[in-house]
Amino acid sequence: MSLLNSTHDPLLRSWVASANSAGCDFPLQNLPFASFRRQGSNEAFRGGVAIGDQILDLAALAASGTLTGAAQAAAQAGAQPRLNALMAMGPAAWSALRLALSEGLREGPAAQRGWQTLLVAQDLAEYGLPAQIGDYTDFYTSVYHATNIGALFRPDNPLLPNYKWVPIGYHGRASSIVPSGQAFHRPIGQTKTPDVEVPRVGPSQRLDIELELGIFVGPGNALGESVPMAEAEDHVFGICLLNDWSARDLQAWEYQPLGPFLAKNFATSLSPWVVTMEALAPFRVPFQRPAGDPQPQPYLDSEHNRAAGAFDIQLAVDLQTAAMRDASQSHAPIVQTSYRHAYWTVAQMVAHHTVGGCNLQPGDLLGSGTLSGPTLDQAAALIELTRGGQHPLALPNGETRTWLQDGDSVVLRGWCEKAGAARIGFGRCEGSILPAKIPSQAM
Amino acid sequence: MSLLNSTHDPLLRSWVASANSAGCDFPLQNLPFASFRRQGSNEAFRGGVAIGDQILDLAALAASGTLTGAAQAAAQAGAQPRLNALMAMGPAAWSALRLALSEGLREGPAAQRGWQTLLVAQDLAEYGLPAQIGDYTDFYTSVYHATNIGALFRPDNPLLPNYKWVPIGYHGRASSIVPSGQAFHRPIGQTKTPDVEVPRVGPSQRLDIELELGIFVGPGNALGESVPMAEAEDHVFGICLLNDWSARDLQAWEYQPLGPFLAKNFATSLSPWVVTMEALAPFRVPFQRPAGDPQPQPYLDSEHNRAAGAFDIQLAVDLQTAAMRDASQSHAPIVQTSYRHAYWTVAQMVAHHTVGGCNLQPGDLLGSGTLSGPTLDQAAALIELTRGGQHPLALPNGETRTWLQDGDSVVLRGWCEKAGAARIGFGRCEGSILPAKIPSQAM
Repeated sequence: MSLLNSTHDPLLRSWVASANSAGCDFPLQNLPFASFRRQGSNEAFRGGVAIGDQILDLAALAASGTLTGAAQAAAQAGAQPRLNALMAMGPAAWSALRLALSEGLREGPAAQRGWQTLLVAQDLAEYGLPAQIGDYTDFYTSVYHATNIGALFRPDNPLLPNYKWVPIGYHGRASSIVPSGQAFHRPIGQTKTPDVEVPRVGPSQRLDIELELGIFVGPGNALGESVPMAEAEDHVFGICLLNDWSARDLQAWEYQPLGPFLAKNFATSLSPWVVTMEALAPFRVPFQRPAGDPQPQPYLDSEHNRAAGAFDIQLAVDLQTAAMRDASQSHAPIVQTSYRHAYWTVAQMVAHHTVGGCNLQPGDLLGSGTLSGPTLDQAAALIELTRGGQHPLALPNGETRTWLQDGDSVVLRGWCEKAGAARIGFGRCEGSILPAKIPSQAM
Repeated sequence: MSLLNSTHDPLLRSWVASANSAGCDFPLQNLPFASFRRQGSNEAFRGGVAIGDQILDLAALAASGTLTGAAQAAAQAGAQPRLNALMAMGPAAWSALRLALSEGLREGPAAQRGWQTLLVAQDLAEYGLPAQIGDYTDFYTSVYHATNIGALFRPDNPLLPNYKWVPIGYHGRASSIVPSGQAFHRPIGQTKTPDVEVPRVGPSQRLDIELELGIFVGPGNALGESVPMAEAEDHVFGICLLNDWSARDLQAWEYQPLGPFLAKNFATSLSPWVVTMEALAPFRVPFQRPAGDPQPQPYLDSEHNRAAGAFDIQLAVDLQTAAMRDASQSHAPIVQTSYRHAYWTVAQMVAHHTVGGCNLQPGDLLGSGTLSGPTLDQAAALIELTRGGQHPLALPNGETRTWLQDGDSVVLRGWCEKAGAARIGFGRCEGSILPAKIPSQAM
């Protein structure tokens, strides 16, 4: 499934003109999936595919009678409010639908120009979560993040001895995952500094971002079965952007011995568009361990993983304060990094998660963990960028930020580009901070 | 909702004769809920209520035309394959159904003897999970367990400074929660002992039980809203038995810094019957902190919680080895304790979980954590009973157990009894260990 095929040809152009613009996230070579409906309508959510600045409505496509066979079956599954049924179908179905979409949307003899009537402008759409997420697991695949944050929480012991052997992960909260664009209230919780005896209860004062990728599970495995490396990517539907908002002061006080809880379960933001593994094929890169590091154990190793298990996905975080918004100043970049720096691959996450028999189900979500790169300007969380809050970031309008303030808006972006391939993008994952909602009762 | 009413009268008798037997778990004063169907049938699962050795079929009851108003609406919700809709309705609906069931099943002028045709013998039933569980959170509410296990994992630092302030919890895996009776394979994973450089990959050698209670969430809260202590119990549908099977060798190697992962996500067993908060009302006891311990912070405190926030639920673990089974020897008791020893109450779990705005949804599950009591014979996991595997348990047939062996069967039981109240029980939560399933590929 990692081989390039005609759907990747960078010379292909779509009859949807906006898809051919330089810098467009959604050219013909991308074709990511979302769940959408028209803004402010009572329409049912259904699957859609991005093409340029439009969405091809999968419910309308499935009803149009213009597809056949495996592609039609996949479009019908994608017509449902959430994409779980499409995710469950597996790579052959996904690939058949992708080929039919690519052929129908490209200029040339097979162009389905009648699909023009099945398009909805992205400007007029609102998005739901791509799937009903049964379980959400967050990994910790950046050794740079693990080292940076470990040094702040445990100065004497930054990178724990298991890190280079175990793809560390933990179970996250599925109910509080929200679609891009949904604002959330600053969380309240307990914090304790060494100078006080009694913990303080109140709004978090150290609200942070975590720039991550979200990985949607495809068919999955039965309880008690494991997924070997050779099959792991067959269980991955695609990748989106994920912001694992984190309250660092709550986290520091609560996280031992069982891990983060209230520090992360108040909100997690997901981008609407899920970019398929097939669309990402041109951007695979070798997975390499630094010299001297242990090689992955056999159940986490494969020739394919070594040759092409990593992805060069460029990632950026942009921040806009309330003052910037009031002055019509757009979001300012604060981080840029790449997914290629991850210490563990997508396939390794799947193989490790299932080696003990844990069942993954269609629509389950895996988080990559904070994707900090090797240098501090590539750090993907404020706690690292500001070195634990000691060195505030300077913003273009003269403001500074150590932690997020009420009214701040954060946008994650992702894209892939290289010579000889069409640039593809992930769109945006946006979230903004509302003031804490103080309960009327005593805290 | 904590006041006793006519449904608790210990003198009431049912026209279902088996409900009146001494020692029966399911007298008229209990009326717990499960999801069931006839064994080996293709029937739809639906809700049922235990009475003696029978199940009152809620789908048949809802169709019988013998209930009206709120009780009929609740029975209709309970007729679905899982109980989420009934859980979502809240205490007034639950209470109306309980009263109607109690009146119809008791001897006397309101007896609905026609319901005889709506009964299914428990011996002929199989059970599903009571709810579609969206999210599962496991707490850590026994200070004795936290201290015992902390001493083994961190001899210099057994009880962490946050324990007496924060109801510690973490997110668990929902997909691998299985109904009582379902066997599971011994998990495979990485373990590392100090004497080796490279971790071993293979079947867990330190498979353990954790005796817990499972708490099913009722209506729940919207994202961003918190549930105050005064309302917390209105969001609790009921309580069942939960075995949080744990692979201690995997746990020791993987758990830092983000908590248990593969050590616990291979299987979690739930008892079929959910005992309602109303049925438990006679067994409330004061919630008291040991002298010198900090009092709960205001958001975790209420007069009701102090007066009656804890429950005196007796708990036991019984073990049967393959050799015992072959010799027709029944399960042997290895632990007995009570939920009254918990350091945090059900209401405190709900209030803490939501204080930062995390949304609980109907059918979500909270685990109490391992319910070890103050003395070592009340320890609710093998790791404590055997003091880290150093002191094997002697079984009645001359076998010993340090950790669970393939073929072992473990049963959890729970019951409440006191003078002046009818004894009620939780039934059984059973699980058994199959050999590890070694993958064909390299590990």
